[in-house]
Amino acid sequence: MQSDAAGGSPLDSVTEAIATYVAEAAPEALPEPVRKQAARTFLNWVGCAVGGARHETVNIALAALAPFSGPAQASVLGRGERLDALLAALINGISSHVFDFDDTHLRTVIHPAGPVASALLAFAEYSSVRGPEFVNALVLGVEVECRIGKAVFPAHYDIGWHITGTTGVFGAAAAIGKLLNLDAERMAWAFGLAASQPVGLREMFGSMTKSFHPGRAAQNGMTASLLAARGYTSSTRALEAKRGWLNVLSAHHDSAEITEALGARYEILANSYKPFACGIVIHPAIDACVQLRNRDGIEAASIRSVVLRVHPLVLELTGKTEPRTGLEGKFSVFHAASVALIEGDGGERQFSDRAVRDPAVIDLRRRVRAIIDPALTPDAATVTLTLADGRVVEKRIEHAIGSLARPMTDADLETKFAGLAEASLGAAGTRRLLDLCWGVGSLDDVAAVAEAART
Amino acid sequence: MQSDAAGGSPLDSVTEAIATYVAEAAPEALPEPVRKQAARTFLNWVGCAVGGARHETVNIALAALAPFSGPAQASVLGRGERLDALLAALINGISSHVFDFDDTHLRTVIHPAGPVASALLAFAEYSSVRGPEFVNALVLGVEVECRIGKAVFPAHYDIGWHITGTTGVFGAAAAIGKLLNLDAERMAWAFGLAASQPVGLREMFGSMTKSFHPGRAAQNGMTASLLAARGYTSSTRALEAKRGWLNVLSAHHDSAEITEALGARYEILANSYKPFACGIVIHPAIDACVQLRNRDGIEAASIRSVVLRVHPLVLELTGKTEPRTGLEGKFSVFHAASVALIEGDGGERQFSDRAVRDPAVIDLRRRVRAIIDPALTPDAATVTLTLADGRVVEKRIEHAIGSLARPMTDADLETKFAGLAEASLGAAGTRRLLDLCWGVGSLDDVAAVAEAART
Repeated sequence: MQSDAAGGSPLDSVTEAIATYVAEAAPEALPEPVRKQAARTFLNWVGCAVGGARHETVNIALAALAPFSGPAQASVLGRGERLDALLAALINGISSHVFDFDDTHLRTVIHPAGPVASALLAFAEYSSVRGPEFVNALVLGVEVECRIGKAVFPAHYDIGWHITGTTGVFGAAAAIGKLLNLDAERMAWAFGLAASQPVGLREMFGSMTKSFHPGRAAQNGMTASLLAARGYTSSTRALEAKRGWLNVLSAHHDSAEITEALGARYEILANSYKPFACGIVIHPAIDACVQLRNRDGIEAASIRSVVLRVHPLVLELTGKTEPRTGLEGKFSVFHAASVALIEGDGGERQFSDRAVRDPAVIDLRRRVRAIIDPALTPDAATVTLTLADGRVVEKRIEHAIGSLARPMTDADLETKFAGLAEASLGAAGTRRLLDLCWGVGSLDDVAAVAEAART
Repeated sequence: MQSDAAGGSPLDSVTEAIATYVAEAAPEALPEPVRKQAARTFLNWVGCAVGGARHETVNIALAALAPFSGPAQASVLGRGERLDALLAALINGISSHVFDFDDTHLRTVIHPAGPVASALLAFAEYSSVRGPEFVNALVLGVEVECRIGKAVFPAHYDIGWHITGTTGVFGAAAAIGKLLNLDAERMAWAFGLAASQPVGLREMFGSMTKSFHPGRAAQNGMTASLLAARGYTSSTRALEAKRGWLNVLSAHHDSAEITEALGARYEILANSYKPFACGIVIHPAIDACVQLRNRDGIEAASIRSVVLRVHPLVLELTGKTEPRTGLEGKFSVFHAASVALIEGDGGERQFSDRAVRDPAVIDLRRRVRAIIDPALTPDAATVTLTLADGRVVEKRIEHAIGSLARPMTDADLETKFAGLAEASLGAAGTRRLLDLCWGVGSLDDVAAVAEAART
């Protein structure tokens, strides 16, 4: 329900409270686990951006917009171009989301790094930024977008907003505003300018416009803070006002999610990373198939049938039985299970047109059945194989790899990163970039990361 | 009520219908009165942009964003800078709205020219455009934004969206898409990209962010069409889909307003122009005061009291009794009446800090009373003066100057334009720019207008 009165209550100061928090939060205040998680979030984002940079979506965006670019201030990760910082933020935001392989704040389904890190790294190249300040700004940006997301989830998402783009503008504004040393009033103005520029409708899912959303959110948030820094005024009640963002963009909200325990808990600790390049609901099934293949050395030819026992959302979201393209493959748990049993992974290569059209994958896919089990949690699944010789083997996953209960290890993240980056940066370049990402918090100039991510 | 079914009805094709119309509409199809009105709309917009260009809001936006500008492709009207076309569209959109003096589509309270003309003229400088194509694109842009506005007004505006910014993105996308010769499918993609980038909450009214809205809408719409032209895909059902723009951004809508009688009627014919630099509700009172002063030669010192009989909205929107700044003066019918009686106008100069703080204006303002009369139409008012010698004089306005029933004449528009432009362009430069605006439809290259509007 709409829990805030329109005026006069103590909750009137939501925008000022979060603006003041961001303006005052110092790098030294970050607990060590938060710094560590920030490095993981950043590393995962860099890998996704480098890996996605050669996608057709990125090629088109560059062809359309590079003629309007300003000075060469910032890099397109995974490529050679340099653009003005605002445009680089847009393009890197697109790259980092185009494989649907980026991070997920599970409670809100926000992909936090896209809007925030895309703005931050581009800005860091434009205006020299040290590691501690960069990490602090990243943590604060994620904090702001995820808290605002929690205040409106699920009503805001259910009606049709792509929550990564709508809240991401605030995240990017917070992060860049922090680097610009905005005081609380100007930070509030930046949030006002951000509130007036939400990005993203879910109707665009399945088209290139989906990955436009985090990129544009990065660009809009940076624009908001650049303007506010010069004194461009806005409302200081952008979130909670009667005609402010919370009321206009969500039928229900709880603004306490934005203001409670600021500085005492960190949303980035609830961030998660995808081991597989597809919607998170089919990760448990993929995880089971990969483990069955590796544990039992099962070959596709020896499998008579596959039965998946899955959460109801799996068939609602990924029930496509005959995918024809890589993109459609991401919405087919049947394809995902088949290709995981054959190739032992669920990376971007397993969701390519090549993989979806592979006769062996298609043949096995048609022997995959799915059974809904409402008793399962979303991160659980059971896969049962009946082999040609009559044997039955089974794998039950309680918590899929990548879930909060079973997070990807640092080594897992490195393997994922290498799979995304090595084709364009080579093994040595990838290693060097990994090391820079792990050490981001102690760099003298974070621009070094962007330079190492160029081809 | 929400009149469209989520799927399967004939109305499913709203986006495709409007996209097809824009893609196919030829300059030759425009009736002469439409071309004439387009020239009036364009001229009024150029005057507002030139006049607003030295406002502090524009100075700040330029200081913040010029460092990121691309090549010098387009002019900032009323100034000397040249910027990339996307940024020029933003800045000119801000300038043209900063005085609240631009055009109004009364049915929807959209200010149609800001988003559309700001995008168009900047793009015309970047890519040579002839007059007939320019005017056609302007008419189509206004058509698209006002029809979408009619489909969601008043619910969309009431909840808190600044409808000029939210629908303006579509208008700018239509106009630029037309100049780019997008086919119907790519025009629909442009509308998809536009739908994902709405701009503007009403909460920002009273701050610089209000004039950011039409500018950003221009920039977003141009971006949408530039991307779509290169093949950046989006939904082709952006308006009518279950999670499309109409459902997500408005509790109630009637999409028939978007598709009915396309090409048979033109919304630009319902556009109006402000004679006074403030909200339209106080125009009848100002009109009456100016006429009383000029007709009867009344001096402020001779006025004992002023009684305004006005529509209820006047006190709801402009009931401020003690304004302290020029901007606040725009929200005070008491100031507006006082200064109109003293200075005989309601232009930007009458809503300056100087005017609001003028002791004579303050003295008379405190003798102005307002009486609500629900029987009045919004464009009517009666002003009654009691003079020091006991005489009572009265003026009743049935339809204020600038209303659809009593539109500003071409000569009125020229006088308004000169008041805005002469300070920066001089009399001869203003005359030359006026002539170019009147003749926009037959120019070989519309860039000539922008060149003549530079200082």
